[in-house]
Amino acid sequence: MPPRNAFYAQSGGVTAVINASACGLIETARQHKRRIGKVFAGRNGIIGALREELIDTSLESARAIAGLRSTPSGAFGSCRYKLKSLEQNRAEYERLIEVFRAHDIGYFFYNGGGDSADTCLKVSQLSESLGYPLQAIHIPKTVDNDLPLTDTCPGFGSVAKYVAVSTLEAGLDVASMCETSTKVFILEVMGRHAGWIAAAAGLAARSAGEPPHLILFPEIAFDRERFLRKVKEAVKRHGYCVVVASEGAQDAAGNFLADAGSTDAFGHKQLGGVAPTLASMVKQELGYKYHWALADYLQRAARHVASKTDVDQAYAVGKAAVELAVAGRNAVMVTLERGRGKRYSWSTGEAPLAKVANTEHKLPRDFITRDGFGITEKARDYLQPLIAGEDYPAYRDGIPEYTRLKLQTVPRKLKRRFKV
Amino acid sequence: MPPRNAFYAQSGGVTAVINASACGLIETARQHKRRIGKVFAGRNGIIGALREELIDTSLESARAIAGLRSTPSGAFGSCRYKLKSLEQNRAEYERLIEVFRAHDIGYFFYNGGGDSADTCLKVSQLSESLGYPLQAIHIPKTVDNDLPLTDTCPGFGSVAKYVAVSTLEAGLDVASMCETSTKVFILEVMGRHAGWIAAAAGLAARSAGEPPHLILFPEIAFDRERFLRKVKEAVKRHGYCVVVASEGAQDAAGNFLADAGSTDAFGHKQLGGVAPTLASMVKQELGYKYHWALADYLQRAARHVASKTDVDQAYAVGKAAVELAVAGRNAVMVTLERGRGKRYSWSTGEAPLAKVANTEHKLPRDFITRDGFGITEKARDYLQPLIAGEDYPAYRDGIPEYTRLKLQTVPRKLKRRFKV
Repeated sequence: MPPRNAFYAQSGGVTAVINASACGLIETARQHKRRIGKVFAGRNGIIGALREELIDTSLESARAIAGLRSTPSGAFGSCRYKLKSLEQNRAEYERLIEVFRAHDIGYFFYNGGGDSADTCLKVSQLSESLGYPLQAIHIPKTVDNDLPLTDTCPGFGSVAKYVAVSTLEAGLDVASMCETSTKVFILEVMGRHAGWIAAAAGLAARSAGEPPHLILFPEIAFDRERFLRKVKEAVKRHGYCVVVASEGAQDAAGNFLADAGSTDAFGHKQLGGVAPTLASMVKQELGYKYHWALADYLQRAARHVASKTDVDQAYAVGKAAVELAVAGRNAVMVTLERGRGKRYSWSTGEAPLAKVANTEHKLPRDFITRDGFGITEKARDYLQPLIAGEDYPAYRDGIPEYTRLKLQTVPRKLKRRFKV
Repeated sequence: MPPRNAFYAQSGGVTAVINASACGLIETARQHKRRIGKVFAGRNGIIGALREELIDTSLESARAIAGLRSTPSGAFGSCRYKLKSLEQNRAEYERLIEVFRAHDIGYFFYNGGGDSADTCLKVSQLSESLGYPLQAIHIPKTVDNDLPLTDTCPGFGSVAKYVAVSTLEAGLDVASMCETSTKVFILEVMGRHAGWIAAAAGLAARSAGEPPHLILFPEIAFDRERFLRKVKEAVKRHGYCVVVASEGAQDAAGNFLADAGSTDAFGHKQLGGVAPTLASMVKQELGYKYHWALADYLQRAARHVASKTDVDQAYAVGKAAVELAVAGRNAVMVTLERGRGKRYSWSTGEAPLAKVANTEHKLPRDFITRDGFGITEKARDYLQPLIAGEDYPAYRDGIPEYTRLKLQTVPRKLKRRFKV
């Protein structure tokens, strides 16, 4: 059987290490030339397949591909584009198969979160019903750590490390100034539906009483009075209070705090944000001087402080995806499995996509302290190994030397354009 | 002459490297035991002297002091507390001398920005008029880089590096998603009156067209229409636009874009909220999807990505302060001097405090491009060496191992308490 080509696409919000998965995948595919021809990457993710914009990764040097291991964000472009259900828009799926057929693509590697796992499964199903031979393999990626059946998701460990390190550093800053300046500092972090990232801030504290003093999880209903009482207690006890709030923090009725918005000194409505909303509460009710930070994309792009464990795992899942493909697997997701020993160990595994799609993995209740504002030892045991190890990019002139690819697309073979 | 003791205090907003200055100072003082007895550090800065809360640094191990070199924030505590003028509150200055006399302090090392340079000078003058022998040496520190007579201020290089690296990383993130997601990203950075920190973001771009596409400086009057036009142009040309805005951005009339409406102890207005203000404009006028980040304390505490040049210079000014004291100097500030050669070199020097106090060093107009939204080659030549080199802290369990000191104070000798 002659080798068939592969299609790889990055999906959804990018991370500090998704390119490490691309690196693992492409480097491994290059070692299987008898089975895998060229690896084409979708320009801007799955949209690149629909538009027949296929980047020819074979034109990139070994050095450039190796550089992906330490380059954040999506080197081929990613997208927020969810394919509708097969019933709603069968044409999109058929277009994918049409493009795959035109370029003799026999392997579909989709690197993303829950939505893309769902898409990956549907593409696999449709190709089968159309009689087009295709192996669809999903490669996990999400800073939110909310995929089921895998111990963790590549991308999470690095954002977790960023948040833990930033909380530690900002905490030292506030501690050293609190006598005459800021008493309450609030850091807003990502995690719309699950509190994994906020939980990671808890790793900043090596012993009791150290920041963060309060963590706000989406899983725990926000109670204004309890929150303010806890802030006051922390300020009385430690002289200051560091709060790490998940963007998904919400009240018992499910209203996001961020939607509450706030008004500035001139009565202008400010755009949403959990941190400014909490800061307003603190100022109004307790009168403490406050500061707040919103890390936003900085946290998920922060390759400069990536977790080595995370980088290694991101590379490994890309590598494993190719190995599963070569072994004939289809409609599976690569997983990460934690060893049973006391000392942390991990390996890659696989799970059927049918079990993965559209299931959200929330923070277990026993990872959160009884009062709802901290993490337990169990959470710490789970989280700590994921941020372990440093893996610095190369620097030139004081800033990281991140890879820029040629990103040359192959000539189109189809006459029909597809509008997305 | 028997050795006399030294008093060291950290003042104002802390930085990623102010403890490196403390490290240089204490390690060097320990080498001059015949001239300098103990080094006492003020608990929470100058307040520690007024309250007679003197931390005995001789009780800290050599290892703990060495660890200060890689520990951010103010290990002894800092404060925002400006001594009034001699006429307004002579009692405060006299109290300082009283405490110094009680503990045989012959050297006063004050580590801070413009305000503390002013205080340092006044203490020197009063001690002279009271006939109390004291050498007052100022050690520069400010992330704002706004002190005169020194090529740069320790603390600036590291925040500059943080901002450049973060801009680079967030820029890659936005670039990879802009086809279907965020088109405009705004990062708000520190810099109340001078645009040095915002300017440093410009180092993220290795070639034309790379982020940041727009920088907003306090030195250039903000013009809403021009700003929006430039954002639109960047999105049309590159597909996205990265804006780095100084918190001090203001219009032609001097109104800050976002004014939190509160003031600190120095009478400075407390700012914050430029990014959401700009985001609102972009959303309302151009309709682009936006994201914004506010780094706040994260930027000045980010020892994990400190500039090696900055760390070395921070250490050197602490060391030089002791050497100047031993050489008999008084009422001077340690400066950093840039060598004249094409290749960057630096050494420490000194400047009379009378020339330093209360002068602000703004970004020169020829550091800003003609259109007011970028930095020139001249700025780049000045800024680049200051962020050069990496100097990573040691890590344990995935987070930096920052030094915690014993912070034991010496017994009080004065009966009188002084309320601050």
